Amino acid sequence: MNAPSSFVPAPALPAAFLDELRAGFAERCSTAQAVREQHGRDESVFDVPPPQAVVFAESEAEVARVVSLCAAHRVPVIPYGAGSSLEGHLLAVRGGVSLDVSRMARILRIDAEDLTATVQPGVTRKQLNEALRHEGLFFPIDPGADASLGGMAATRASGTNAVRYGTMRENVLGLRFVNANGEVVRTGSRAKKSSAGYDLTRLLVGSEGTLGVITELTVKVHPLPEAVSAAVCFFPGIDAAVRTAMQVIQLGVPIARCELLDANAIKAVNAHDKLGLKEAPMLLMEFHGSEAGVAEQAAATVQAVADEHGGEAFEWATTPEARTRLWTARHHAYLSGLQMRPGCRAVTTDTCVPISRLAENINASIDEVEAAGLPYFVVGHVGDGNFHMAYLLDPARPDELATAERLSAQMVARAIRLEGTCTGEHGIGLHKQGFLRDEAGDEAVAVMRALKAAMDPLGILNPGKIFTGPGPGD
Amino acid sequence: MNAPSSFVPAPALPAAFLDELRAGFAERCSTAQAVREQHGRDESVFDVPPPQAVVFAESEAEVARVVSLCAAHRVPVIPYGAGSSLEGHLLAVRGGVSLDVSRMARILRIDAEDLTATVQPGVTRKQLNEALRHEGLFFPIDPGADASLGGMAATRASGTNAVRYGTMRENVLGLRFVNANGEVVRTGSRAKKSSAGYDLTRLLVGSEGTLGVITELTVKVHPLPEAVSAAVCFFPGIDAAVRTAMQVIQLGVPIARCELLDANAIKAVNAHDKLGLKEAPMLLMEFHGSEAGVAEQAAATVQAVADEHGGEAFEWATTPEARTRLWTARHHAYLSGLQMRPGCRAVTTDTCVPISRLAENINASIDEVEAAGLPYFVVGHVGDGNFHMAYLLDPARPDELATAERLSAQMVARAIRLEGTCTGEHGIGLHKQGFLRDEAGDEAVAVMRALKAAMDPLGILNPGKIFTGPGPGD
Repeated sequence: MNAPSSFVPAPALPAAFLDELRAGFAERCSTAQAVREQHGRDESVFDVPPPQAVVFAESEAEVARVVSLCAAHRVPVIPYGAGSSLEGHLLAVRGGVSLDVSRMARILRIDAEDLTATVQPGVTRKQLNEALRHEGLFFPIDPGADASLGGMAATRASGTNAVRYGTMRENVLGLRFVNANGEVVRTGSRAKKSSAGYDLTRLLVGSEGTLGVITELTVKVHPLPEAVSAAVCFFPGIDAAVRTAMQVIQLGVPIARCELLDANAIKAVNAHDKLGLKEAPMLLMEFHGSEAGVAEQAAATVQAVADEHGGEAFEWATTPEARTRLWTARHHAYLSGLQMRPGCRAVTTDTCVPISRLAENINASIDEVEAAGLPYFVVGHVGDGNFHMAYLLDPARPDELATAERLSAQMVARAIRLEGTCTGEHGIGLHKQGFLRDEAGDEAVAVMRALKAAMDPLGILNPGKIFTGPGPGD
Repeated sequence: MNAPSSFVPAPALPAAFLDELRAGFAERCSTAQAVREQHGRDESVFDVPPPQAVVFAESEAEVARVVSLCAAHRVPVIPYGAGSSLEGHLLAVRGGVSLDVSRMARILRIDAEDLTATVQPGVTRKQLNEALRHEGLFFPIDPGADASLGGMAATRASGTNAVRYGTMRENVLGLRFVNANGEVVRTGSRAKKSSAGYDLTRLLVGSEGTLGVITELTVKVHPLPEAVSAAVCFFPGIDAAVRTAMQVIQLGVPIARCELLDANAIKAVNAHDKLGLKEAPMLLMEFHGSEAGVAEQAAATVQAVADEHGGEAFEWATTPEARTRLWTARHHAYLSGLQMRPGCRAVTTDTCVPISRLAENINASIDEVEAAGLPYFVVGHVGDGNFHMAYLLDPARPDELATAERLSAQMVARAIRLEGTCTGEHGIGLHKQGFLRDEAGDEAVAVMRALKAAMDPLGILNPGKIFTGPGPGD
């Protein structure tokens, strides 16, 4: 894809700036092509030059020093964690420095009695869960990729489990960040709730690096459930699967995960893993609770609801091995899906609507992509009303990308009509700036811009993301 | 109490302004002393002159008109809902207009399938629950008073039930507000989650009327639980009661309410209602779930944990009548407590700490108040680490108020040392502006001030709250 509209060719970094950066960081400041390119690529479809330098920070004080230098020289600074963004968040559309915090990867505290953990931003979710497991705890937010906690906060990530445990919005209690002046700001506390002033924590969560660089997070963690069971069931159509999910939630069953795979996704995992699953919309559910509660939920309530909607081949599993087998399809869906069209590039959508509108949104999107003739598959966090359609594109055919963009725009327009959002969990980044305006309205975007200008008057913090400007040169 | 430090005597309202207001609102614009005084009193201890005028708005367009007029004439505007603030939020410390939205009390939509409700800001929680009951749903946030949803959002209210269902922070999906220019801004959507730009919803939640006037809210609602049971138990000390609550939560039991009453609160309700309860720290718990789950939780797990901590007289109830009897003590605690010292005035604290620190915070606060010799009682939302100590003061003895303020300041300083907050659910208002700075730090308060200045450059929206200024005349 061509450069996004927010791309502005950047002047060379000032020599004095680079000298200071090198003096402070030695070999942890790099302008090598390979390092820069590695920090200039993510999972998005955009093609822009890499950042002009990369700095590996190892402490909050170092983050503050980099940001202060960038402010003094009006150089853009782009926080970098695990590089797993899907929306171009880490691309240097105005040039500048990629500030890599992946080495700030210490778990600072686990407070089991309070169900909190405090971590540096480069800690990944798998690393945190490994440490928590020994305490009988876990961190539920699972976006698929082994993303960094800092990046997950910055994009307000969620994934499976959100239907029960919420997203990063609900699970970050407080954080520390370096503001555009290079000062450290603390937000929140370890208390579960507070009415003390503006909710700066939640302003930073989802701010995509544009309001500050997150240097520490205190998150909620949860007791490992006494019992976990998983169930799969196949349905005659998307409608029936979604209605089943909706009713299970309405009945107050504390379902922890609720994932949909469409027939194409099943075909893909069958081809890849020889699973021999029925090639029909599949619902994959997980229940967390006590022994008695889990058995009761999965066996009785859910099966009855699924039966009512024509569910077939209901199967459930309580041992870890059996659960892993059931979940294989979901875990392999994305990579198996890509292999349905070897060499393809995927564009993935992320709309989220009220659950009563989800089937309509998915079915209309399927009708449109079928009419357009693009290969695709669907996976969905249906408990949240969120689904992803991956369009599988031939990189040599720009017409296919144009078609995918048209279909995506139709889908977003529909999601907004259905009272939903253009992005459930991936963020705005570069790709959805127009959609944000369509969704939130000019007034709300004007408020967001005013907040950005108040907190980053020079526009050095990840400029060109969420909305373009203000930034150096604007 | 004297006027707070943020009190600034206000000039008379401009005649042209009042003329325009009267032309637009006729008898719904009042400068009558009785109406003004009724809008100039809340549950706080401050004594300031009432607002200079009161306007009763009946629509969002009318709210926008009032705010626009106030902006044009630089007159402060103070949103008014049910008047149940404990922290002086509605007091006209810079004069101006009280904008009463209590007549905007329509429930606009209930979407049972999506578990959402959309309401005007004057709808009270009891009114909403009455409407939801017919759909098998409920709205869990219960701060005690029958507060308006707009006011509850503005103070980030919670109360009992938050341990399971969260606070207004977690339960507002989106809202509409009138900004300082008189424009309507929409935030959020009916989707359960979103990563679309800055979280303006949560910036408004807890903003205490200083960033905009909330004109509509979409909230999460919940299925009425299939089974509800309540349990009470008495403990040899606060420690044992809090440790019991902590372990129950750690075990992953989905407890919905978890309230503590100290021996003084029990004495008060015994005197008031002849309940004959043991005069010892009491834990009152409620469990929501399925028939099997609730029985299992309350009977087995919780009783075993309470036993370990020396709990006595464990009693539990599953019928509504039996539950109501158990809850009588909690519902009557505040009023009964006041009657322990007839004619007294109460100052109520609101610290919230990580639950592992709660017993220390309560016990030290009790030691201090006992040493000072003030009458008091304690009620606590212990599942959240939040408790309220009410100091019962003789209004004729200013020395008692001074003592209460000193004790309160000691308690807040301790709560902050214990990694908690000065206010779990009441807000900053007028009373805790110094505490906010102690808790959040100068850098965070500077960010909050920058946001306020960006969104309300003239300082007309509830000036003098949270922090003083910027405002007309500053």
